[in-house]
Amino acid sequence: MRHVRFRDPAGAIRNGNWTDDGIEFGERTYKPSEVDVLPPSDPSKIICVGLNYANHAEEEGMEVPDRPLLFLKPPNTVAGHGDTITPPEGKETIEHEVELGIVIGEQCRNVPESEAMDVVAGYTVADDVSNRDDQYVEQNWVRGKAFDGACPLGPVVADPEHVPDDAHVELRVNGEVRQSSSIAEFIFSVPELVAEITQYMTLEEGDVIITGTPAGVNSLEDGDEVEVEIEGIGTLEHAVER
Amino acid sequence: MRHVRFRDPAGAIRNGNWTDDGIEFGERTYKPSEVDVLPPSDPSKIICVGLNYANHAEEEGMEVPDRPLLFLKPPNTVAGHGDTITPPEGKETIEHEVELGIVIGEQCRNVPESEAMDVVAGYTVADDVSNRDDQYVEQNWVRGKAFDGACPLGPVVADPEHVPDDAHVELRVNGEVRQSSSIAEFIFSVPELVAEITQYMTLEEGDVIITGTPAGVNSLEDGDEVEVEIEGIGTLEHAVER
Repeated sequence: MRHVRFRDPAGAIRNGNWTDDGIEFGERTYKPSEVDVLPPSDPSKIICVGLNYANHAEEEGMEVPDRPLLFLKPPNTVAGHGDTITPPEGKETIEHEVELGIVIGEQCRNVPESEAMDVVAGYTVADDVSNRDDQYVEQNWVRGKAFDGACPLGPVVADPEHVPDDAHVELRVNGEVRQSSSIAEFIFSVPELVAEITQYMTLEEGDVIITGTPAGVNSLEDGDEVEVEIEGIGTLEHAVER
Repeated sequence: MRHVRFRDPAGAIRNGNWTDDGIEFGERTYKPSEVDVLPPSDPSKIICVGLNYANHAEEEGMEVPDRPLLFLKPPNTVAGHGDTITPPEGKETIEHEVELGIVIGEQCRNVPESEAMDVVAGYTVADDVSNRDDQYVEQNWVRGKAFDGACPLGPVVADPEHVPDDAHVELRVNGEVRQSSSIAEFIFSVPELVAEITQYMTLEEGDVIITGTPAGVNSLEDGDEVEVEIEGIGTLEHAVER
């Protein structure tokens, strides 16, 4: 299943299944363009991992960390498939970062690695949109990473079995490939991330962990159309207005 | 008014008024010990300010910042009046930080300083409990500041007119005064903080801004009883289990 939350043409919010035929709910199949695809969950928090691909660590001139580097995005950062985001005004450099998102399925704390997949509802696609002007001069990346719309998520939550261990990850801007890698390059695995984070905090149903980005991060300009694709999940689309 | 959310002896959640006589709701007046005082709001995020008292900046060996230093605490950090918090195990240094909390009264974005008090529901008391072992080795203070229970809040939301511009701020551990200062020493005022933060993010009703701590931060040990008092608001009490 590729679970999708959407608003149907009559305005009702539905949980459907995104197949090759379209979005199925009950007896009906909608074209994706007919409905308003909503963010795949309503997270109380998004926990973000920095430098989880060795090649991005190198690009940023940083050493590979010995435990996950974490930061936070609050709920105001969530945007959905098809949305246009408007980063803070007057900044020089706004960049994209394709990331695999782990959607949590139940409240949990102190989850051992061996049981981590039991609390994972599935995977989604994220763009960790970053305002470098502020990020590079802040201790904590709040102005840099926590502005409204800084975390487009979607379009679906795919069951983990749909997503191969070496799933291809790609981000395109106006059709041009900017980032291209595979989750096989993760430094910390999904179970390692869930275990580490839940040593410190309770995760709630719908919370999201975004798992770091590969090399190739680059600038977003006014009018850019972004496609963020992960094999087995689908393609998250969003636009940028600056 | 000093607004207090509480669970009455029958289990119902009520919004009362904490007066010198007790907690008033409808025709009844409860003793505070009779009810379960709840956190004063249900924030979607807590935005935290570092180094907002010049004397604490000095204590930490840091320069006074030219704009507010921000970090985040997600909803899992909230604890209430009378709660016992259990910081992450195996850490050397867990410290207290008394802070004035600004409770937001309505959804808002891009609020000018001149209108900032219109979106403030009132003030509460916070303890920004900090795990220094991790904070001092992290870029973003997640393990250090965002663990479960790291933000006791309460016991009330006081209308702003109850809180003088030079309100005394004090934190006691087992009756011994550890921090003692006044909000007159703020580097950035409440309207300046609201204006700066809402340039980047939408605040929701119930969100909280905690406004930095004065000098005197110190260690919390197993069994410590903490009283956090701000003039015009009241005294937030919590215990520590390590």
